[in-house]
Amino acid sequence: MPGKVKCIGILTGGGDCPGLNAVIRAVVKDAVQNGIQVIGIRDGCRGLGDKHMAALGPGDGSNILTLGGTILGSSNKDNPFHLIEKDKSGKIHYHDRSRDIPKNLRRVGIEAMVILGGDGSMTVANKLSHMGLKIIGVPKTIDNDLMGTDQTFGHDTAVSIATEAIDRLHTVADSHHRVIIVEIMGRYAGWLALRSGIAGGGDIILIPEIPYDEKKVGEAVLERRRKGKKSSIVVVAEGAHPKGGKMVVDRINPFSAERIRLGGISRQLAHHLEAKSGVETRSVILGHVVRGGTPTAFDRNLATLFGVQAMNLISKGQFGRMVALRNNRMSSVPLVQVGGKTRKVPANHELIRAAKSIGVSFGA
Amino acid sequence: MPGKVKCIGILTGGGDCPGLNAVIRAVVKDAVQNGIQVIGIRDGCRGLGDKHMAALGPGDGSNILTLGGTILGSSNKDNPFHLIEKDKSGKIHYHDRSRDIPKNLRRVGIEAMVILGGDGSMTVANKLSHMGLKIIGVPKTIDNDLMGTDQTFGHDTAVSIATEAIDRLHTVADSHHRVIIVEIMGRYAGWLALRSGIAGGGDIILIPEIPYDEKKVGEAVLERRRKGKKSSIVVVAEGAHPKGGKMVVDRINPFSAERIRLGGISRQLAHHLEAKSGVETRSVILGHVVRGGTPTAFDRNLATLFGVQAMNLISKGQFGRMVALRNNRMSSVPLVQVGGKTRKVPANHELIRAAKSIGVSFGA
Amino acid sequence: MPGKVKCIGILTGGGDCPGLNAVIRAVVKDAVQNGIQVIGIRDGCRGLGDKHMAALGPGDGSNILTLGGTILGSSNKDNPFHLIEKDKSGKIHYHDRSRDIPKNLRRVGIEAMVILGGDGSMTVANKLSHMGLKIIGVPKTIDNDLMGTDQTFGHDTAVSIATEAIDRLHTVADSHHRVIIVEIMGRYAGWLALRSGIAGGGDIILIPEIPYDEKKVGEAVLERRRKGKKSSIVVVAEGAHPKGGKMVVDRINPFSAERIRLGGISRQLAHHLEAKSGVETRSVILGHVVRGGTPTAFDRNLATLFGVQAMNLISKGQFGRMVALRNNRMSSVPLVQVGGKTRKVPANHELIRAAKSIGVSFGA
Amino acid sequence: MPGKVKCIGILTGGGDCPGLNAVIRAVVKDAVQNGIQVIGIRDGCRGLGDKHMAALGPGDGSNILTLGGTILGSSNKDNPFHLIEKDKSGKIHYHDRSRDIPKNLRRVGIEAMVILGGDGSMTVANKLSHMGLKIIGVPKTIDNDLMGTDQTFGHDTAVSIATEAIDRLHTVADSHHRVIIVEIMGRYAGWLALRSGIAGGGDIILIPEIPYDEKKVGEAVLERRRKGKKSSIVVVAEGAHPKGGKMVVDRINPFSAERIRLGGISRQLAHHLEAKSGVETRSVILGHVVRGGTPTAFDRNLATLFGVQAMNLISKGQFGRMVALRNNRMSSVPLVQVGGKTRKVPANHELIRAAKSIGVSFGA
Repeated sequence: MPGKVKCIGILTGGGDCPGLNAVIRAVVKDAVQNGIQVIGIRDGCRGLGDKHMAALGPGDGSNILTLGGTILGSSNKDNPFHLIEKDKSGKIHYHDRSRDIPKNLRRVGIEAMVILGGDGSMTVANKLSHMGLKIIGVPKTIDNDLMGTDQTFGHDTAVSIATEAIDRLHTVADSHHRVIIVEIMGRYAGWLALRSGIAGGGDIILIPEIPYDEKKVGEAVLERRRKGKKSSIVVVAEGAHPKGGKMVVDRINPFSAERIRLGGISRQLAHHLEAKSGVETRSVILGHVVRGGTPTAFDRNLATLFGVQAMNLISKGQFGRMVALRNNRMSSVPLVQVGGKTRKVPANHELIRAAKSIGVSFGA
Repeated sequence: MPGKVKCIGILTGGGDCPGLNAVIRAVVKDAVQNGIQVIGIRDGCRGLGDKHMAALGPGDGSNILTLGGTILGSSNKDNPFHLIEKDKSGKIHYHDRSRDIPKNLRRVGIEAMVILGGDGSMTVANKLSHMGLKIIGVPKTIDNDLMGTDQTFGHDTAVSIATEAIDRLHTVADSHHRVIIVEIMGRYAGWLALRSGIAGGGDIILIPEIPYDEKKVGEAVLERRRKGKKSSIVVVAEGAHPKGGKMVVDRINPFSAERIRLGGISRQLAHHLEAKSGVETRSVILGHVVRGGTPTAFDRNLATLFGVQAMNLISKGQFGRMVALRNNRMSSVPLVQVGGKTRKVPANHELIRAAKSIGVSFGA
Repeated sequence: MPGKVKCIGILTGGGDCPGLNAVIRAVVKDAVQNGIQVIGIRDGCRGLGDKHMAALGPGDGSNILTLGGTILGSSNKDNPFHLIEKDKSGKIHYHDRSRDIPKNLRRVGIEAMVILGGDGSMTVANKLSHMGLKIIGVPKTIDNDLMGTDQTFGHDTAVSIATEAIDRLHTVADSHHRVIIVEIMGRYAGWLALRSGIAGGGDIILIPEIPYDEKKVGEAVLERRRKGKKSSIVVVAEGAHPKGGKMVVDRINPFSAERIRLGGISRQLAHHLEAKSGVETRSVILGHVVRGGTPTAFDRNLATLFGVQAMNLISKGQFGRMVALRNNRMSSVPLVQVGGKTRKVPANHELIRAAKSIGVSFGA
Repeated sequence: MPGKVKCIGILTGGGDCPGLNAVIRAVVKDAVQNGIQVIGIRDGCRGLGDKHMAALGPGDGSNILTLGGTILGSSNKDNPFHLIEKDKSGKIHYHDRSRDIPKNLRRVGIEAMVILGGDGSMTVANKLSHMGLKIIGVPKTIDNDLMGTDQTFGHDTAVSIATEAIDRLHTVADSHHRVIIVEIMGRYAGWLALRSGIAGGGDIILIPEIPYDEKKVGEAVLERRRKGKKSSIVVVAEGAHPKGGKMVVDRINPFSAERIRLGGISRQLAHHLEAKSGVETRSVILGHVVRGGTPTAFDRNLATLFGVQAMNLISKGQFGRMVALRNNRMSSVPLVQVGGKTRKVPANHELIRAAKSIGVSFGA
């Protein structure tokens, strides 16, 4: 039996996501019940280097269940193995600042770490684990595209917000006999556009996994007109692209040299559709709205289960793993199986088949 | 290969539930795609006898996805095998009116039936199936207590509404340092109270599966006070009851001779708690509010999958079955395995274990 | 010109109400801009005697705009002029504990007080003002029944929550061809039931100002049936009562000897309606749910305007007044004109006339 | 006394707006009570020429209260006095098609018209009135920029939706220490951005009435940083512009030759802010989402009052007027005073003064 862990650290990395605080709350409350000290690391992996750490007492778990975002702060560009630094001339350099992490943690007494994050954070978590640190990962992404778990918290909330927006846009499209194209986050996987598209009664759904044919999208709109349906709702993932085409990329992040997509496929498609079909077309980019605010009941419960499961793994000494939901039950997978991959929507997924059965077009 | 079904009937039985219209929509849209005629039966099983039937055209599937309730109407007291009738003196008699059903269906050309409902409706569906009719059941209950499926549509919506109400009551309890007891539907199974209780940050959760000790409920409240937490939220399923006690039953339904619970356990408990602990206590009974209105995105998608799956079973000639969600995938089970049973919350369910781990009391 | 006030106190009294924190935030932020110190008094008027006071810094105004309830705590039974105390035998005595208040305030340096509350708190505020203290009142009640202001914050939120609940109940009533009676807070004034009743499409609205005739309520339901409308929604204020009848009173508050209404008129009426009309009838009591949670945008803005207006009055040295909304503009009225009165719905109010014009029955 | 009108027409013009159906419902229900026939004109003013008209029976007022958009359809480019037509070569011509309108109305028996719409529709309504037709206008615009009425329905709903979105974006900004710029509809008047900006706790609010200085916006962000507030929310009306600058215009509507703004000021400002301040900045354009979906309780009630007031004016024979809310009461104004004007936010409006008092910057 492993020696009991007395003090753990917790950090939230990557883009923010409804339910992060619900996980933190579950971890803190579970720890309080078991006499374990919890130390919060500020601003994601940046805190590991900067030593921004503070003890989380019992009260810190209170009143945060419904709170969006993360009370710990996050950062999606501070990979300690590949830290971006600008020199005086503005040139960008990358450095490996991971060497000091074990020492930093030891100094404040942290014996094990719970790391909440997406693909990038799980890759870091895995590397830290290979350095000999005791790490538990907790999967987080509104996109639901993380390997190893059937669902991540935040996804249901994002689907709900997007669906509510689509509900609203239906009345706008109907009143004016328009096509409205709604662009929804999802660079590499279409789960969010697919689920909110079906739930929102979208007529055409375009996802990265199924490159579309602009002509067929136009035909689907005109076919609906012929049947007397004067408006159409097109739900498009930001990463969707025409056959042979590419994602629209708008600019380069000046801090990270990373390419940033500001949304654009919906505008490009709106222009095309209106020009070809002659039907008035408008586009709306939901953007960051879908990742903020109070988590749904579903996500609060999933986040709570994940937080408790992380503590279970710690008490059993099963490190180097990410908690997971598999076949409707709490489970876990080795961190090494998670990072650097993307869980895409399979082309014959039952949601896609169901959507096709009720007449939804995927533009292909 | 079975002869292709050309015309189906559809009815919604039992208490109403968010998502019924989403299933009807999916069935109608799928049928339109496959050249199958759909006939809607009015007001649940009553329509089978009364011949209240009308064809549902393509347009009838439009604009109902977001609509709560059922466009077909329902009835939760017209079991055709056990129909309640009052004679002139007001005395109640039961009759078996099932004999005419096959003839009634044949007259309008219905070859197979899709029956949406809960435990009672699935029992009727099974009996009709045994009479030789081609029946597909679709599970529906906000309580999520139906055998054979991991989840029913409507449940997530009810959990969401109840959670939102609990969120509101927190601020009331906090401002006044009160105990607030929220009573939530769930006569025999505590899924709804359990899920909304955890998602809503309930401090004490009482469900039918775990008879509670009033003394321990009071102690849990006072223990929280000692820790400086001046308010407490108790979430109680209407069917919860003290050890050795019984559900509170308020009156007899004058139409059905059925015992009707109007809510009461929360009032009884509030009275008890206030008297024993001296802490101001209020009770709120959410009642029918949790079963109405627009379904969540989750429930719309589950309902759509169920509707399409029902049509798949029909096309494959697999009758006498209920569509089901099992291990996160569409599936089906024989109707005979469903009726007359209740899927209760297992005492060691991971939600209960997680809740205990973060300090929730079950009063036991 | 009056000497500039350097330090103010703020307290929230009476039942909690969405928007209290938005007022506190506006007062703190305005004070910070003007170099004024703010001291928060805990738990309503109780804090005046108990000396539970703490400085509110700039950060205390952050992140509370959307929060329901009050961060200061409240109490609706600690009138310092008439304090309830129990002796050892449990007997209740009333004491005037107001004498020490000026001294208590002076000790911490408070020169002027902002008191948020309803009728009771404004009465206390007026008495404190007559003792020579510098007092500004801010009107608060979900019932909107306070004299001197066209609207109070919290009311719009309560109307919204109640309307959303009525929306949900429509689908339940429609699916089952039932009458559903929704009981909504409002002991003496029917603003809440009236506004949510019209907004929720209620068919019959019963308010305290218009005693109803049970027979006419039944007739209205049956008349709807005759026109083919199988369901009806009755919206009833908790203080509504039949002609010649009285409000239903359920019990006596053991702490305050005050009579407490737990809701009941809806149950009584449901029983009566079902028995007389033979139509299935259910009742739902929304209770405290309508007073909790995040305020609407309307109430946040009204609360912010009120908070700033309170600070304006302080800077002008206009004490003994309550801030008010009059003819769509910020204004103020002498406190003496507010307490001990109730702003009821006039029988010919344009909302009542409009409701009647579209066929709503008031049961009279 | 004027001869009683027996048959009226109703149409909805301009951009859609939550509450249009609530007005239609009130008009239909009031008309049913008074034995007046209502005829719905399809697709705004286009229907006046195309003779797309259909009687609205009692049932047409049912179940539409909560529905966004308009059951009659709308059009915002079919001014009958200035109709756009393309010739074969694609060239655009304008025609006056108003001459036939009286005849078209007479043919179906319409004696008076209720016209719901914004500035453009009220201008048309006024011209029709001058042609001798009996016209009542009902003010509609989410922007609340219509002359003659203190408020229009739809505005409160749009404010609510925008505020909820800003709530969500706060958690995103906080978690990542970012500036987020939210762009909200409002070309010429800033009511929507102002109300949702204050209600949403915006730190900087930019409206068309107060041209901003980009430098001061940047300073406001940096000043917040210095005070330890790492994130900032900038709420910007689409029509806001820098001092000496102009609204961003993206393209020309190919149908109407009208200039269409697709949003852009927020992107332009984000780019500028990030470059100058070095603080990560993101922009979100809410777009059409704020004009769709279920109206708030407030807007349903205002719409109902407006609908009934329109019928009152008809019964009194007071034509050529627009119904209005003035000083919290139903009123009316001559149509001639409404069209062609814009009700802007006065620079010293109490909302602006209040916002400044609590530290909000207007960038000026």
